[in-house]
Amino acid sequence: MPRYRLDIEYDGTAYAGWQRQADQPSVQGAIEAALFAFCREQVTLGGAGRTDAGVHATGQVAHCDLDRDWPANTVRDAVNAHLQMAGETVVILDAARVGPDFDSRFSARGRHYLYRIVNRHPPLTLERNFAWHVKKELDVEAMHRAAQRLVGHHDFTTFRSVRCQSKSPEKTLDRLDVTRAGPLIEIRASARSFLHNQVRSMAGTLKRVGDGGWSADDVSAALAARDRTACGPVAPPGGLCLIKVDY
Amino acid sequence: MPRYRLDIEYDGTAYAGWQRQADQPSVQGAIEAALFAFCREQVTLGGAGRTDAGVHATGQVAHCDLDRDWPANTVRDAVNAHLQMAGETVVILDAARVGPDFDSRFSARGRHYLYRIVNRHPPLTLERNFAWHVKKELDVEAMHRAAQRLVGHHDFTTFRSVRCQSKSPEKTLDRLDVTRAGPLIEIRASARSFLHNQVRSMAGTLKRVGDGGWSADDVSAALAARDRTACGPVAPPGGLCLIKVDY
Repeated sequence: MPRYRLDIEYDGTAYAGWQRQADQPSVQGAIEAALFAFCREQVTLGGAGRTDAGVHATGQVAHCDLDRDWPANTVRDAVNAHLQMAGETVVILDAARVGPDFDSRFSARGRHYLYRIVNRHPPLTLERNFAWHVKKELDVEAMHRAAQRLVGHHDFTTFRSVRCQSKSPEKTLDRLDVTRAGPLIEIRASARSFLHNQVRSMAGTLKRVGDGGWSADDVSAALAARDRTACGPVAPPGGLCLIKVDY
Repeated sequence: MPRYRLDIEYDGTAYAGWQRQADQPSVQGAIEAALFAFCREQVTLGGAGRTDAGVHATGQVAHCDLDRDWPANTVRDAVNAHLQMAGETVVILDAARVGPDFDSRFSARGRHYLYRIVNRHPPLTLERNFAWHVKKELDVEAMHRAAQRLVGHHDFTTFRSVRCQSKSPEKTLDRLDVTRAGPLIEIRASARSFLHNQVRSMAGTLKRVGDGGWSADDVSAALAARDRTACGPVAPPGGLCLIKVDY
C-alpha cells in the first residue's frame, strides 16, 4: 500500500483536539472523513503531535496508507476540496509519497512549538483565539533567563499533565526562547518530543516569572520537585501552535 | 461637554461595517451601545474611516462628547467591559481627552491601510477572515511597479464605488507599496483620504497585474479612463485593515 505524508495546517479553535473522538469534532476525524469522501477508504491517520482542544498548527505532519496509488497532489487537492465543503478549518498544505518506514510520530527527530502572549491592557479582538491575553506588563528578559533553567535533559514531571501517557517523564528540551516585539511575546520551544501539556505548563510558569511572582530559582525548584502541583498555571490553548516537525 | 478621542481595534468579520445600521450589527453601533450601558447617554460616534462589512481595524479613531467629565481610562475600561459582555469583537485601545476642535474624520491628515493577500495553492485556515486567498503565483515586482502609476494626484473615478458619496473623485495617493514575505503579500496604501472602495479596487487591479492579466500600461489606461467599468475586480473585504490615522 502506498504511504503518504501530509503536512497540515489548522485553526484548532473549533476542535476538541487532534485525536479522533466519538462525539466531538477533531482534526484527525475531519481529515479521515475527507479521505473517506475522496477514496471510500477507512483510513487511520497517524499524527506527529497530538495537539489539545483549541491548539493550532501550521506544520503538523501525519501519514496514512491508501489502497490506490494516487498522485500526491490529487490526494492533497481532493482532501482539501472535501474539507472545504464540510466547512472544516483544516487544510493539507502538502502531500508526498513516502516509503513504508516513514512514521509521522516515531520518525520525528524534532518538534517546534510557538506560544504567543499579547501583553497589553485592552482585551483582544483579532488575536482572541490565537494568543493568551495578559494585562500585567511582563519582564521578558526575566522570562528568558528563567526559561534557560528548563533547557537540557530533565525529569519534567512538574510540567506534565496527569493525563500524560508517555512512558517516561524524562525529556531533552533543546530550546526555550522568549522574545518580545511590541505587545507580542513569543515563546519558542523545541525538543525531540514533549510531554502532554508540557509547553503550556512551561509557558504558564514563565508568565508567573514575567509578572514578578516567581524568580528563576523558583522555576529551578519547581523542576526539581518533580511534582505536578509545583507547576505554575497551565497557559490557555489558543496561544499554542505546532509550527514544524523535523525528520 | 468634554470630548474624547477613542483609538479602536476590531475584527470586522461579523459586522456590516463601521456605520450604524438599523437592522444589522455595526462597529459604531456596538460602541455606542456600550457607551450607553456605561453612562446612559445616547452618543453619536464620529469615525475616521467608514470601513465596509468584513474590513478590520487596528488603528481606527473616533470621537464623542460626554456630559460628564470621566477620566479617560475609565471610559476605555468601562466601554471595553460592556463590549466584552456583549460578545463584540471590538475594543477601545486607548481613550484620551481632546479639545473641542478635534474631529476624528475632518482633522485627519493621513490614513494608512494594509491589504493582505496569501498567495499559495491550499485554502486558508488561520487567515481565512484576514487575507485574500490567491492561488496563482503573483509577480510582486510587477505589482509594485504598476502601483506607482496610481501614486500622486489623480481623478480616481475608476477606483471608486458607485455608492461613493465623496464630493470629488480627485485624491492624492501618497503611497502604494507591494511587498512579499513568503506566501504573504502586503499592499500598503496611504493618503489624506480615500474614496469608497478605493483601496480594495486598487488591490484587485494590482492582483490582475500580478497574475499577468494586465500590464502597468493597462493600469494607467484604466486610471485615465475615469470609468468604474474599467476597474479590475474589487478585492474581498477580509484582507483590508485600517492600521493608522494621522492627525
